[in-house]
Amino acid sequence: MKTLKEIMPAVHRVFNFASGPAVMPVPVLEQIQRDLLALPGVGISILEISHRSKTFESILAQAEADIRALADVPQNYRVLFLQGGASLQFSMVPMNLLDAGSVADYIDAGSWADKAIQEARKVGRVNLAASTRAERYTRIPAPRELQLSPDAAYVHITSNNTIEGTQWRDLPDVGRAPLVSDTSSDMFSRPIDIEKHGMVYAGAQKNLGPAGVTLVIIRDDLVSRSAAKKSSIPTMMNYAVHAENRSLYNTPPTFAVYSLGLVMKWLAAEGGLAAIARLNERKAAKLYGEIDRTGFYRGTAAPEARSTMNVTFRLPNEALEKQFVTDSTKAGLDGLQGHRAVGGMRASIYNAFPEAGVDALVDFMREFERRHG
Amino acid sequence: MKTLKEIMPAVHRVFNFASGPAVMPVPVLEQIQRDLLALPGVGISILEISHRSKTFESILAQAEADIRALADVPQNYRVLFLQGGASLQFSMVPMNLLDAGSVADYIDAGSWADKAIQEARKVGRVNLAASTRAERYTRIPAPRELQLSPDAAYVHITSNNTIEGTQWRDLPDVGRAPLVSDTSSDMFSRPIDIEKHGMVYAGAQKNLGPAGVTLVIIRDDLVSRSAAKKSSIPTMMNYAVHAENRSLYNTPPTFAVYSLGLVMKWLAAEGGLAAIARLNERKAAKLYGEIDRTGFYRGTAAPEARSTMNVTFRLPNEALEKQFVTDSTKAGLDGLQGHRAVGGMRASIYNAFPEAGVDALVDFMREFERRHG
Repeated sequence: MKTLKEIMPAVHRVFNFASGPAVMPVPVLEQIQRDLLALPGVGISILEISHRSKTFESILAQAEADIRALADVPQNYRVLFLQGGASLQFSMVPMNLLDAGSVADYIDAGSWADKAIQEARKVGRVNLAASTRAERYTRIPAPRELQLSPDAAYVHITSNNTIEGTQWRDLPDVGRAPLVSDTSSDMFSRPIDIEKHGMVYAGAQKNLGPAGVTLVIIRDDLVSRSAAKKSSIPTMMNYAVHAENRSLYNTPPTFAVYSLGLVMKWLAAEGGLAAIARLNERKAAKLYGEIDRTGFYRGTAAPEARSTMNVTFRLPNEALEKQFVTDSTKAGLDGLQGHRAVGGMRASIYNAFPEAGVDALVDFMREFERRHG
Repeated sequence: MKTLKEIMPAVHRVFNFASGPAVMPVPVLEQIQRDLLALPGVGISILEISHRSKTFESILAQAEADIRALADVPQNYRVLFLQGGASLQFSMVPMNLLDAGSVADYIDAGSWADKAIQEARKVGRVNLAASTRAERYTRIPAPRELQLSPDAAYVHITSNNTIEGTQWRDLPDVGRAPLVSDTSSDMFSRPIDIEKHGMVYAGAQKNLGPAGVTLVIIRDDLVSRSAAKKSSIPTMMNYAVHAENRSLYNTPPTFAVYSLGLVMKWLAAEGGLAAIARLNERKAAKLYGEIDRTGFYRGTAAPEARSTMNVTFRLPNEALEKQFVTDSTKAGLDGLQGHRAVGGMRASIYNAFPEAGVDALVDFMREFERRHG
């Protein structure tokens, strides 16, 4: 039997630099497409299958097993598939983990960290342990800047700042407090030491799969803290409920979980987290190299804090930036306009973004500079 | 260019009687499959496209427009696409609409209504306006049974009880109080008078599309009530925030919204809500006719409350019920085992469930009775 690729006319695809939802691996898209009318041997589409069926339970269990293997997740951590994205986690984290009389430390190093802080303040007491806001979030705070509470309920960071293009290179030392990390935009882009975290969470739509599912990895002692809140917070917001029900308390986003599982299989076949990290470093180095080559382009993030996922840069003036967006889109390089908070350009080059697309952008940048520099 | 249907080998599909996630229209599945690698003319898959792109904004706007046209939604109602299913709405409804000092009336006519009540009680004061729990939810309360509060913040019902197989035939008269209806399992299966509601909500995974998106239609005065809660409840739980941002406050479940939009197009092409209601009545009548034919089968819902969506019935004994499940699954009739709360069988026959599948089940029931009756 021929594959769809063999029988379908060539499909026109552009290079998609969007910050999320973002590019997915083509082999994953092809498998989803091939099996869309009915899962092989089942006779029911993944879009139609009961979440209580053996087939779906096995899809969910396999996705969890593949995540555990990829990231070496210890046995005392639960893997949960939830909804609502990181934005809902901004509330769920303090509702579950921050008791009255306690304080949570937040490190404010980007626009999304700030959003997490705003939500936490609705729930309980927040200590701003450090902030680079006054510097427009162009860098990550240094270890000596952190003013941590003696007995924080947890310390919250955003591991990669999608908007500003900065990334924590090393985790901060937070002592005995559980580190809670929003890893939405760099999850599984490099090895991650789960044991150094109390909890990590990530909306899927950058490195993990399509929008619509949120990955949470949470240590058992934090699940227990959450269990004490069952009567006081909404059941759907309670980590312990989802852990006890293995993410099947209510209907999960079945298709998004299935797709995420296929992406995990793809990632393992690519060599796992160490291999993808090397590729991601190489792709980012090519772009930063071009940015630094002459001074025509200017990186907006402090060099030591540069993200391998979101490469932000400006041009000599806004007229040229506008021209760059127009011309690059025409050249099949889509989604390069930066976030309005930073301006300029942003190239999001997540795991599934092909190196050929990076090369194409480097060529385009060079040619654009030649014409306008 | 040939269609996928023409070039793919015939795909084996069974009749899927699952209660949700549930069967979807085959033409919708085919369109999703055809365009999965890249939306035509866009070069990016629906699984990868930015929710801030013009393409996705247009998909979202079209889905809303089609919903408004199908159900004749008045201009003073907002149409929202959220996450978390009906289960999260159980909390969002009271968090947004029930003020301290007010009371919400709940009509308890099924297992899901009861879950909604449990969550509302965590938030505020609940008046149980009627309950058929003592009768194992086999019927819908009569108008004279309702003990409504004089100034209820709202009155909550579940329009169709998926587990028990009962359905409100006529909406209750709740005076000036806003009626809030969980329509998860019969939304758009028949004409709906939106103006008689303050709000309706529905998880998509029965009649609207795949799991992962929740449809909310809410009147402006209730949105205003919600706006007063912005500083006190999580931003992601606030209807006013989602209304002001046209469901783009955060990354929506893009693929699920797209699929739901395609289902709305299909529904319009089938003739809209009046036409689908006639078909649904005819499908249900065939099954209830067979159930009532001899007494071998026994419907569990009171005849006047029988659902057109979920047809529940028992056999003379549990051994035969077990046999029925085994034999029907073998015959390609999948998902007929009833919920453990009711026992027996449940045939869920939502909009997209083909009449040929109903005919196949009727034939199977007759033959099963012939062999075991």
